Amino acid sequence: MIGLNRMEQITIDATQMVAHVGAGAVTADVQTAAERAGLFYPPDPSSQTVSTIGGNIACNAGGPRCLKYGVTADYVLALTAVLADGTIVRWGDGLAGQGPTNGLAQLLVGSEGTLAVITEASLRLIAKPAARRTTMAIFADLDAACSTVERIMAAGIVPAGLELMDDTTIAAVEAFLKIGLPSDAGAMLLMLVDGEPEQVDADAAQLADLARAGGALRVQTARDAVDEANLWKARRVVSIALTRVRPNRLGEDISVPIPQIAACVRRIKQISLEYNFPIVVYGHAGDGNLHPNILFDGRDPNDTERLWPAAEAIFAAALALGGTLSGEHGIGTLKRPFMRHALGDDLIAVQQRIKAHFDPQTLLNPGKVLPEAS
Amino acid sequence: MIGLNRMEQITIDATQMVAHVGAGAVTADVQTAAERAGLFYPPDPSSQTVSTIGGNIACNAGGPRCLKYGVTADYVLALTAVLADGTIVRWGDGLAGQGPTNGLAQLLVGSEGTLAVITEASLRLIAKPAARRTTMAIFADLDAACSTVERIMAAGIVPAGLELMDDTTIAAVEAFLKIGLPSDAGAMLLMLVDGEPEQVDADAAQLADLARAGGALRVQTARDAVDEANLWKARRVVSIALTRVRPNRLGEDISVPIPQIAACVRRIKQISLEYNFPIVVYGHAGDGNLHPNILFDGRDPNDTERLWPAAEAIFAAALALGGTLSGEHGIGTLKRPFMRHALGDDLIAVQQRIKAHFDPQTLLNPGKVLPEAS
Repeated sequence: MIGLNRMEQITIDATQMVAHVGAGAVTADVQTAAERAGLFYPPDPSSQTVSTIGGNIACNAGGPRCLKYGVTADYVLALTAVLADGTIVRWGDGLAGQGPTNGLAQLLVGSEGTLAVITEASLRLIAKPAARRTTMAIFADLDAACSTVERIMAAGIVPAGLELMDDTTIAAVEAFLKIGLPSDAGAMLLMLVDGEPEQVDADAAQLADLARAGGALRVQTARDAVDEANLWKARRVVSIALTRVRPNRLGEDISVPIPQIAACVRRIKQISLEYNFPIVVYGHAGDGNLHPNILFDGRDPNDTERLWPAAEAIFAAALALGGTLSGEHGIGTLKRPFMRHALGDDLIAVQQRIKAHFDPQTLLNPGKVLPEAS
Repeated sequence: MIGLNRMEQITIDATQMVAHVGAGAVTADVQTAAERAGLFYPPDPSSQTVSTIGGNIACNAGGPRCLKYGVTADYVLALTAVLADGTIVRWGDGLAGQGPTNGLAQLLVGSEGTLAVITEASLRLIAKPAARRTTMAIFADLDAACSTVERIMAAGIVPAGLELMDDTTIAAVEAFLKIGLPSDAGAMLLMLVDGEPEQVDADAAQLADLARAGGALRVQTARDAVDEANLWKARRVVSIALTRVRPNRLGEDISVPIPQIAACVRRIKQISLEYNFPIVVYGHAGDGNLHPNILFDGRDPNDTERLWPAAEAIFAAALALGGTLSGEHGIGTLKRPFMRHALGDDLIAVQQRIKAHFDPQTLLNPGKVLPEAS
């Protein structure tokens, strides 16, 4: 699609509530096109201004909103893809997502380019929420924040975003932005609700109450769009703020059951001490998807030597707590060595056979996701 | 799971908002268990009091609510299945639905038992809507009802149900129930909204306005739960009411784009005249999923001889209008002869290779879905 105007590969069918897009369409452009038609494309990876729909589908991207709205897979109605032998397939029906080839379309979602090359997609759109409201809560310690997350989920509120930042992340953000976050903050929650205005007000008030009942030191609800943007700025600058602490970072992406979030973060803090790295933890607490980041200096051989054992210890911690290797960033090369541990030999063998079936000459994204046959 | 108490194979994890169920769990029991925990399992096939989750997953079942909430595939987070060689696989992560084997789990959804035997599933649950309200609108003709459907979707309201019944269906229901449906009614819409009480009231009022603006002869909004149940009774009795018209019926299930619904129903009415069968049309208009039913007498050879050509004409009409062979009932044996027409030789060949890969000895649901290799 090189040379094509960015928006030209996006067609919105407002009646059918479907976006037909080229794989190279930028996620944020699809969101903009949908919203111009009064509709909504929920998946919102933090990379949305640069990431493409093809990449989002290949990795089954999520984002803060996936807690309420589901992940990219939930919005893929149909795909066009090129198989390794050159066959062009159109799988899924682009209607209600129930045609006889829908399962095949879904097989390609999250396959990270290892089974076929995705060229086009039809994406389900939903009605655009009329209002949104963000509430920030700061806690003295992580346990109080995590038990508040559990209490929110148990109360039946489904936020459109429920982001957790640990003490190290808050300190890094404060050093970068100087917005007055308390230096003794142990954890912070950003809680977004969206929907109809009255309900959004009621939900935001209930979230504030739950945070206070959970021991929050400070609770602040956005009054307007400017407030709203300021609260989310703290979350958006995390990546860049962390580069001020140490020159390099290894960004991880694990998922654990919600009741295990606190235990998981505690274990990561132990790993931080054991391996002598600052490790920050932030992420989408509402669905247990955490982003532990190991901060290191790539020029220091002493750092790079300890890096992989520390990363491995984090993966092992996630698996031991009933979690998974990847929340939303996929497997790629980095987590490939851990796939056998995560899935076991039998499941790996089945996947290797499927990969060999689709791609007998290993032409498609070789060396990714699956370990070599043992 | 024979001998097990029906509810014993259902475990609700309220914090994670997941139901872990045996494949034999009855759909309505899963819904009940979820609602007892203040949660909601949206897929609602009309067979829900007898259908099992295993069957729902195998056919990717829908129902009225799938317009707003998506289909069974959107709620499957993980599956346990037995492959043809006896390997037991656990695919999907049971957390946010983004683990490295999520796509494989989705490959089995809708595969109609042809790729593996599903034994267990982890299903995503959502918050239970606080309120619901149904509005019925009767129109003089089908075009008015169909253009109202388009207008509703364009207005950005997403009903939790938007059911269409044609004149023949209304007459059959009235003959059966005697609830005072007008004998000259050309079409009826049942429009359900759910969510927060204030919003539900506002949406129901807007739906009533849109129906009146669309030329509805009568519009009635349920005042309470009894009213609500009475309005849906007309929809629920359709199957049994039709057996009073002719002893047998061939129930079809096609999907077409929403702007093609009126054209599709008109074409089906022509087919009804051409082949001299009463053919009724009802279904989930909001996502273009229609259920044309050919009413016939299986004891009359004259009827049975014309039956398949009539069914074939309906399938061809759906495909010609950009639709699909199956909305939610799957392919099975009935639509198998039309698969090559619907998908083309190349796609069929790819699917046959995948089937052969999973099931080289054709042990799993032989003779279903895919045509034989040509």
